[in-house]
Amino acid sequence: MTAFAARLAGVVSARGPLCVGIDPHASILAEWGLSDEASGVRELGLRVVDAAAGRIGIVKPQIAFFERHGAAGYAALEEVIAAAREAGLLVIADVKRGDVGSTVDAYGEAWLTPGSPLEADAMTAVAYQGFGSLDGVIARASEHGKGVFVLAATSNPESAEVQTLRVEDGTTIARRMVERAIATDGTAGVVVGATVDLAAVGIDPAVLARVPVLAPGFGAQGAQLSAAPETFRGALGAILPNVSRSVLGAGPDGLGAAIDAAAREVASWPR
Amino acid sequence: MTAFAARLAGVVSARGPLCVGIDPHASILAEWGLSDEASGVRELGLRVVDAAAGRIGIVKPQIAFFERHGAAGYAALEEVIAAAREAGLLVIADVKRGDVGSTVDAYGEAWLTPGSPLEADAMTAVAYQGFGSLDGVIARASEHGKGVFVLAATSNPESAEVQTLRVEDGTTIARRMVERAIATDGTAGVVVGATVDLAAVGIDPAVLARVPVLAPGFGAQGAQLSAAPETFRGALGAILPNVSRSVLGAGPDGLGAAIDAAAREVASWPR
Repeated sequence: MTAFAARLAGVVSARGPLCVGIDPHASILAEWGLSDEASGVRELGLRVVDAAAGRIGIVKPQIAFFERHGAAGYAALEEVIAAAREAGLLVIADVKRGDVGSTVDAYGEAWLTPGSPLEADAMTAVAYQGFGSLDGVIARASEHGKGVFVLAATSNPESAEVQTLRVEDGTTIARRMVERAIATDGTAGVVVGATVDLAAVGIDPAVLARVPVLAPGFGAQGAQLSAAPETFRGALGAILPNVSRSVLGAGPDGLGAAIDAAAREVASWPR
Repeated sequence: MTAFAARLAGVVSARGPLCVGIDPHASILAEWGLSDEASGVRELGLRVVDAAAGRIGIVKPQIAFFERHGAAGYAALEEVIAAAREAGLLVIADVKRGDVGSTVDAYGEAWLTPGSPLEADAMTAVAYQGFGSLDGVIARASEHGKGVFVLAATSNPESAEVQTLRVEDGTTIARRMVERAIATDGTAGVVVGATVDLAAVGIDPAVLARVPVLAPGFGAQGAQLSAAPETFRGALGAILPNVSRSVLGAGPDGLGAAIDAAAREVASWPR
């Protein structure tokens, strides 16, 4: 077991697998009465960290919503990530980066290197250039006890165009991504959407159960947490369910209770 | 023809198709005697802009090398992009972003919206979640006369794992990306690596010729500019060849001459 796998297991054991998304979308900022500026993004992020700390173990800032505000948004992001890590939360930077050679290495330096201003505990990545294109960032992650979650199967209807394609032995590319993640011994996990039909995308739950699975799309994006035991039957113990809008939509005053409710629902899953 | 296609055609007509990469890699910074900090990244970026202005028409900052320096790196990036656009250069932000729904829309807001601190003229994108997952960002690009270059076929050996897979009608997914870009009438182009074997990845040059093709990988990464007429025979008129390390490696004093030499080589292509 790699250092990241051990750390993740510890977090899940102590605080459960629920991951709360930090998505400072314009509409959420408006609902919270915050400005759609870097200062509003920062405020929302820090409040989510405060509410998450002690209640759950994992947060996932969606970097696109920080990037909308350029360098100022990234300054806010640095503060939010640092606050989350100081509070003992495991931070997954949702960046979906992918490239090759020294460029993908640079992403590893940015997100997974101790002392980097954007240092997180894990990042999401995409392998249209082949899983092997991520070798550099996975090696760096392994070196520092960090993790990488690689897109395997996502919930959007357009995803079938790529993700259900079959490699030489008849396996789907989505399942191939899972198999390649398994081979990293716990440094890499995968991203599988909350409403994905595992059979349709060719992923055997018994295989999926062997890697950490970040599962976005619960709540506002369509899937109910109560449906997960059925959707992920056979792999439920590997799932890190992510909720974002559904808890952020409770507003700053209702956020803690909304997180508690989601965490209770997840704790009730048969594992 | 979309506004972006018209603008790109104008730039290529006036200044040629050569694109110079702004890749402030640690080793390049060292060669230039610049610090591996945001200030060094900024300095290198601004010097490349100065050297490119008047010589060529297109620059491509590789965002990973700015992101290594966090918010300070992004502040440098804002300056470099703004300086390039003020100098009349068309700026392609090499970010390879991809996501769905409001998240991918946020990337469009960040990179392709007038007035955004990171406003560029085009961005690179990746469609492991299906070409349709990029609809939001392509619509925004079209609205503002911006462009999106979607990864189709890349030069790294690991890329075959995904890019040569075949969709239902026997077409490769790489070619499907080209076809889908063609359907955007010039808002979307594609990325095809400089050493890609078009036949091996199932891309007919006559099809490729119908979209703008950003072709990285010339120079230090292996392909010679002089080999392009053979590699891209039948599609050469669509190619925007990118050189980075090979010209940056000439150092600050040799950069202008190196760009001139590359531009002359490209101008000698039979088009």
